Amino acid sequence: MQFTVSQIAGMLRGEVRGNGDEKISMLGKIQDAKKGQIAFLANPKYEQYIYSTQASAVIVKRNFEARKEITTTLILVDDPYSSFTLLLEEYHRAVSFQKTGIEEPCFIGSNSTVGEGIYRGAFSYIGNNVKIGNNVKIYPHVFVGDNVVIGNDTILHANVKLYADTKIGNHCVLHSGSVIGSDGFGFAPQEDGSYKAIPQLGNVVLEDHVVIGSNTVIDCATLFGDSTIIRKGVKLDNLIQIAHNVEIGKNTVIAAQAGISGSSKIGENNIIAGQVGIAGHLVIANHTGIGAQAGISKSIKEEGQKIIGYPAFDVKEYFKSYAVFKRLPDLNDRLRELEKKIVQLEKEQQADKIS
Amino acid sequence: MQFTVSQIAGMLRGEVRGNGDEKISMLGKIQDAKKGQIAFLANPKYEQYIYSTQASAVIVKRNFEARKEITTTLILVDDPYSSFTLLLEEYHRAVSFQKTGIEEPCFIGSNSTVGEGIYRGAFSYIGNNVKIGNNVKIYPHVFVGDNVVIGNDTILHANVKLYADTKIGNHCVLHSGSVIGSDGFGFAPQEDGSYKAIPQLGNVVLEDHVVIGSNTVIDCATLFGDSTIIRKGVKLDNLIQIAHNVEIGKNTVIAAQAGISGSSKIGENNIIAGQVGIAGHLVIANHTGIGAQAGISKSIKEEGQKIIGYPAFDVKEYFKSYAVFKRLPDLNDRLRELEKKIVQLEKEQQADKIS
Amino acid sequence: MQFTVSQIAGMLRGEVRGNGDEKISMLGKIQDAKKGQIAFLANPKYEQYIYSTQASAVIVKRNFEARKEITTTLILVDDPYSSFTLLLEEYHRAVSFQKTGIEEPCFIGSNSTVGEGIYRGAFSYIGNNVKIGNNVKIYPHVFVGDNVVIGNDTILHANVKLYADTKIGNHCVLHSGSVIGSDGFGFAPQEDGSYKAIPQLGNVVLEDHVVIGSNTVIDCATLFGDSTIIRKGVKLDNLIQIAHNVEIGKNTVIAAQAGISGSSKIGENNIIAGQVGIAGHLVIANHTGIGAQAGISKSIKEEGQKIIGYPAFDVKEYFKSYAVFKRLPDLNDRLRELEKKIVQLEKEQQADKIS
Repeated sequence: MQFTVSQIAGMLRGEVRGNGDEKISMLGKIQDAKKGQIAFLANPKYEQYIYSTQASAVIVKRNFEARKEITTTLILVDDPYSSFTLLLEEYHRAVSFQKTGIEEPCFIGSNSTVGEGIYRGAFSYIGNNVKIGNNVKIYPHVFVGDNVVIGNDTILHANVKLYADTKIGNHCVLHSGSVIGSDGFGFAPQEDGSYKAIPQLGNVVLEDHVVIGSNTVIDCATLFGDSTIIRKGVKLDNLIQIAHNVEIGKNTVIAAQAGISGSSKIGENNIIAGQVGIAGHLVIANHTGIGAQAGISKSIKEEGQKIIGYPAFDVKEYFKSYAVFKRLPDLNDRLRELEKKIVQLEKEQQADKIS
Repeated sequence: MQFTVSQIAGMLRGEVRGNGDEKISMLGKIQDAKKGQIAFLANPKYEQYIYSTQASAVIVKRNFEARKEITTTLILVDDPYSSFTLLLEEYHRAVSFQKTGIEEPCFIGSNSTVGEGIYRGAFSYIGNNVKIGNNVKIYPHVFVGDNVVIGNDTILHANVKLYADTKIGNHCVLHSGSVIGSDGFGFAPQEDGSYKAIPQLGNVVLEDHVVIGSNTVIDCATLFGDSTIIRKGVKLDNLIQIAHNVEIGKNTVIAAQAGISGSSKIGENNIIAGQVGIAGHLVIANHTGIGAQAGISKSIKEEGQKIIGYPAFDVKEYFKSYAVFKRLPDLNDRLRELEKKIVQLEKEQQADKIS
Repeated sequence: MQFTVSQIAGMLRGEVRGNGDEKISMLGKIQDAKKGQIAFLANPKYEQYIYSTQASAVIVKRNFEARKEITTTLILVDDPYSSFTLLLEEYHRAVSFQKTGIEEPCFIGSNSTVGEGIYRGAFSYIGNNVKIGNNVKIYPHVFVGDNVVIGNDTILHANVKLYADTKIGNHCVLHSGSVIGSDGFGFAPQEDGSYKAIPQLGNVVLEDHVVIGSNTVIDCATLFGDSTIIRKGVKLDNLIQIAHNVEIGKNTVIAAQAGISGSSKIGENNIIAGQVGIAGHLVIANHTGIGAQAGISKSIKEEGQKIIGYPAFDVKEYFKSYAVFKRLPDLNDRLRELEKKIVQLEKEQQADKIS
């Protein structure tokens, strides 16, 4: 796959400055790209490299003004970073994810249907009464339980596991080892100190454009007809725990190793950092930002807050408190010193009175 | 599967008030159940819904007294919640987990035996010298290593991995992606700064009625004949780490993403919250409660404590300290103010003396 | 497999004291070893057991002097612990990991090659253009994506997943459920609040002697030609998250459930404890020790530091501050008391002046 700079500029609605006939076959970084590669310059910190890069072309901002001579060909666009991302995407689409057809052996149960353009890898398993849309990629060792429904253009990487009754929308990507729909963690304590499992009979629903990271787990809802719901556009990183009956609002992004306890409802457009823990039965407002490793034990009602700590509070306040925390032994010493001085002052005042 | 209200009341030893011939085919929640469903009322907060519910029947407490007219049929029982749980369970038993037989291709090594009523899903793998009891369900992509022993009525969901020599009791449930018996994390430092792996030759034992969540990992013990032991009735949530030579006491419950380091011995009936970390070689007393994200660095000798923080201490004390932590910058200001005042007082007293 | 004590002493370059013809078939611990087993004594705390052990032989330090009668045969060596480790290792090599050959069905794509002494378990999958060295063990349900390269003597346990283009060196061990090369978590925010996935086109490189724990995830680098790199001798425990473009220096050891965010560069010979979180784009110096659950938000420039807390600072300082934190309510009371006293003193002084 090879394009000329002019062809690429056309895709990006950009303007060529230099030799539009240069051949481009790969993407690279401005600081180490080679001939045949295209790079981009968005961050001014990297401007120095444009004067020495070996890249055959560099995408720059439309108002870019060179301060030295430039030998590479430029493509001028409104937003170099977005344009480069677009190229990456196109490349990706062209090169990868183009697996189609059926590798044997693979398994499909009774009464299940798959759409056009499907890839079913060897050792993939589809249960009974499953409905799968068009252009779905099912990599090796994927398990699709009974009654699962999957939309179009969704990718299930090697070893994704979907328990029975899971529903997945269009344009979703699930990474290896993610488990969708396993039993919620619900147990009724018995008089003898043991626990009895409460049957978990709901399911999980992933809406469109959801991404699920590797080895992330989403448990099913407890009751029939109930669902753990991941709304449109949600992106979950790796090794995340989403408990039963949780709902995650549209376009919320959660980083690796965070955990959401049962029945909590996370708002839209939240940004939740790594290793955060959120207790059960909470409601988190839209546009909340939660710092790494924070523990959330109360609902967040006001939108747009940024919080951290355990229990979490305002991120600026937290860091102010933490700055004092680091000096606590000193604080303690100063307090002790004052106590001594006051005893002394009191004694002297007493002495004054007597005298 | 359809029952009459009277049949269900019989199962629950309850008393029918209303039409015992109503047909029930599903379970639901009181606030949104439809005709043909049965719901329950345990929490008084939900009482309002009983006057408007579309459910064909509702399970209520024996002493329930309606304050308005009720159109649904009631089943009066001692404990509505337990009764409903029982129904869920029966339903579950009837509908799910009824897979039996052998799907092809699946693999079984030499000298291995399986009991009656077994399900062996396609692409499941059983090694050599394995012994598996009756009514065991082995879902697709399960791996059972050599010499493994599994009791009766145990369920291994899709993709469970059992390393060689693992022993699993009766009535256990292991969820997808859980790994039992991988190498403990033991390395001997070498003079050149590198590490040499210490061979891990023990195994893992799960007693009866143990539940293991999705993608949870339990490492094997280090030496021959030693075992990492999960006692009867233990329930582990998803994404938990249990290191080599750990022992977890009877009926202890551990929430998602917690981690127990090597050789620690956790007591019985502990309740350990999510994302807790417990250091190695500790002993934790029975009936200990450990709050979310706590870090445990010392053994807990006294039973019945509730602790949190890192290092963890009494949960009430922690929250008192944390309340002051949030006001630390203010505390610091007050201290500085006092220091100034004392300097002033001292000066004045000095002045008094001189005068 | 059975050896005499003399044969074992020969392997260990040790000296026999007692019956060199004793038969040894297993290893055990000094406190509960049986006849036919060999144990070791390194920690003086365990000396008592050597006078009563049933072990047929015990490995002791060359200068060991018995204080009572000993009935077991001794092997005298320079370092009993290392010698025992060596034996464990030999045993391990002899007994395990000796699977070879091909179990059917298993899958191999076009243009892929495997070396001698390979084991390919049933339901293992090898894609196209893959190159695999000698004595590699590929357990059941392993997925090896297209263009992967694997060196000699590497073990992929059941269910390891290698995305396309991954490179793995010699003598590596990857445990079950580990995922290497899944997409980095990179999304470009769009004007409507949604996110667009940035294609992830780099790969992951594991150098020689790397160990990866169960269900650990390592994401690929973002750009072509870039790699997430795990250097020689690195040992990663279970359930660890390594984000895109991370580099981990030689011989660094990371405990379970830790997470490293994108583009951070971890030095050599670090020891990183469990559940630690490291933010993105940081550089951590060589020989850094990071305590359990610490959160690292700044680069560590000076080598050899030991840090903890969130944000992390010197471990001794942290514990001093934490000791005061536990008494904060008391500190607050003392401060309030002083404030009252000072008000009183000021009043009295004012009164003195007036009088």
